[in-house]
Amino acid sequence: MAVYTDITDEELAELLAGYDLGAPLAFKGIAEGVSNSNFLLETTFGRFILTVYEKRVAEADLPFFLGLMQWLSQHGYPSAAPKTDREGRILQRVRGKPCVIVEFLSGLSVRRPTVAHCREAGAGLAALHLAAQGFGMARANDLGQGAWASMFAPLTAEADALKPGLAAVIKGDIESLAARWPQGLPQGVIHADYFPDNVFFREGAFAGAIDFYFACVDFLAYDLAVALNAWCFEPDGSFNITSARAMVAGYERRRPLSEAERAALPVLAHGAAMRFFLTRLSDWRSTPEGALVKPHDPLEYERKLAVHRSSPDLVLFGAAG
Amino acid sequence: MAVYTDITDEELAELLAGYDLGAPLAFKGIAEGVSNSNFLLETTFGRFILTVYEKRVAEADLPFFLGLMQWLSQHGYPSAAPKTDREGRILQRVRGKPCVIVEFLSGLSVRRPTVAHCREAGAGLAALHLAAQGFGMARANDLGQGAWASMFAPLTAEADALKPGLAAVIKGDIESLAARWPQGLPQGVIHADYFPDNVFFREGAFAGAIDFYFACVDFLAYDLAVALNAWCFEPDGSFNITSARAMVAGYERRRPLSEAERAALPVLAHGAAMRFFLTRLSDWRSTPEGALVKPHDPLEYERKLAVHRSSPDLVLFGAAG
Repeated sequence: MAVYTDITDEELAELLAGYDLGAPLAFKGIAEGVSNSNFLLETTFGRFILTVYEKRVAEADLPFFLGLMQWLSQHGYPSAAPKTDREGRILQRVRGKPCVIVEFLSGLSVRRPTVAHCREAGAGLAALHLAAQGFGMARANDLGQGAWASMFAPLTAEADALKPGLAAVIKGDIESLAARWPQGLPQGVIHADYFPDNVFFREGAFAGAIDFYFACVDFLAYDLAVALNAWCFEPDGSFNITSARAMVAGYERRRPLSEAERAALPVLAHGAAMRFFLTRLSDWRSTPEGALVKPHDPLEYERKLAVHRSSPDLVLFGAAG
Repeated sequence: MAVYTDITDEELAELLAGYDLGAPLAFKGIAEGVSNSNFLLETTFGRFILTVYEKRVAEADLPFFLGLMQWLSQHGYPSAAPKTDREGRILQRVRGKPCVIVEFLSGLSVRRPTVAHCREAGAGLAALHLAAQGFGMARANDLGQGAWASMFAPLTAEADALKPGLAAVIKGDIESLAARWPQGLPQGVIHADYFPDNVFFREGAFAGAIDFYFACVDFLAYDLAVALNAWCFEPDGSFNITSARAMVAGYERRRPLSEAERAALPVLAHGAAMRFFLTRLSDWRSTPEGALVKPHDPLEYERKLAVHRSSPDLVLFGAAG
């Protein structure tokens, strides 16, 4: 949950004065997003979400994220379309912070995805990769494979505190991933945070994706690997082959994988687990006691790393289906 | 902000299965309410709020609160109507906690009420008192004048910690209020927490009230006194006579005060300030460091108490208009 910025009715009125969106009828902070504050805004013209960016989002990246969201909504992908003010601007400011008004995207995220959800989510991810083709902006993946060694350098003590001896294992993993990392796979814009809470369903069918604030250019199959980790592990830590197979099949319904992409899935999934382990470990360390937002447990991804380390072909059972 | 209970999509589906409200289209936790968790629920049939009651609300009182909300919505008062399931029940359970689905009431609360808002809010409060006439249930005001001495007894050290010597002043106030407390004023159902964040406006006009979880039977004029304290003090601690006059005039547009009620406003406002000072002092004491919800500052109401103590006829300037 997250509402870090408090917007008064007067500030809202001032913001809306620049738009042709009618008069406000309702305005409520909502518990969604961790690096921004979100508000449900109902006006005489419709329903919207006001997103206020907090300091975790680099303002220089906002034109990429918002441009992507606009591009996707204009190219048939169900994502929340940013609204422009009367002068054609998307990005605004409120309380000195950047903000944007986007259309309300209906749909529900699922807590415990079924096999059917995984299939739908896979198809939705492929649709995103296809819809983003032709988008003219680029953003490097600053949390990608090339960054992991330097991300981990300040965290070795923290890793050993989490689990004695873990730092050496992680260091070995990072070196092994660097040696095995694929080259020349198809690249494009990826979501890079395609977790169940960022994907909406309506009556069981994929209905859209939100939270494009990690989007960047990287291997398309890496995005699928992130999703396999996020959607296909059971609460007990086991990898659900049936779910993974459904997710890959759903993806391939829209965008078939090349042989090289398919063969790379295990190392990509191992790497994707590393990326989330590292950011969670960093957030864990930097979160003060009693903070408002409880960080995700880095051990969840430490366990996923261990699964990929010990069963390097596991994900292929999913891809083989 | 408050979302204490996490509801999964599966729990939501199970809950909705008992209703004729269509299929869910969106579900988001919202930052509203302090003693319950609230969710925006959109279905194919419309928009609703799901409220889950946390332990602060006594379950035995829920039939009164929900019965009142139903009564008000059936008697022309703009408040969120509770929905009944297919068997006619309002109160449900989710995750072992009581909950209710109410209609979505649109409108915006104001942070800094203008004189015009105070007039509208006064009229809305009188409309509530009139609409509640005939409601067949009763609930004593367990935070009313008779309770203040015992509420304060365990808090004397806390009062002195807040401000040296304050405990003796508060004790004197409580005794003086007991001696001066009016008798025989018109009684009825009161909101008892008619603060700006519980009142909605649409385009400047009163649009409804929410959060009836302190409602009880007490002097109707006491409810107006609570509102005068909540709406008519400036951020610098001064009492805004113009706002107070507008609020009383707005109230009297719908329900004229008797001479006895008007004469009692100063002592009622002094008492109303005591009630909120005492609960805030208690919440302040019992809130652990770093808690999710920051309690209201008891000093705000200590200052209001001081204003009423030193200018006992102040509120009458408002009433005289």
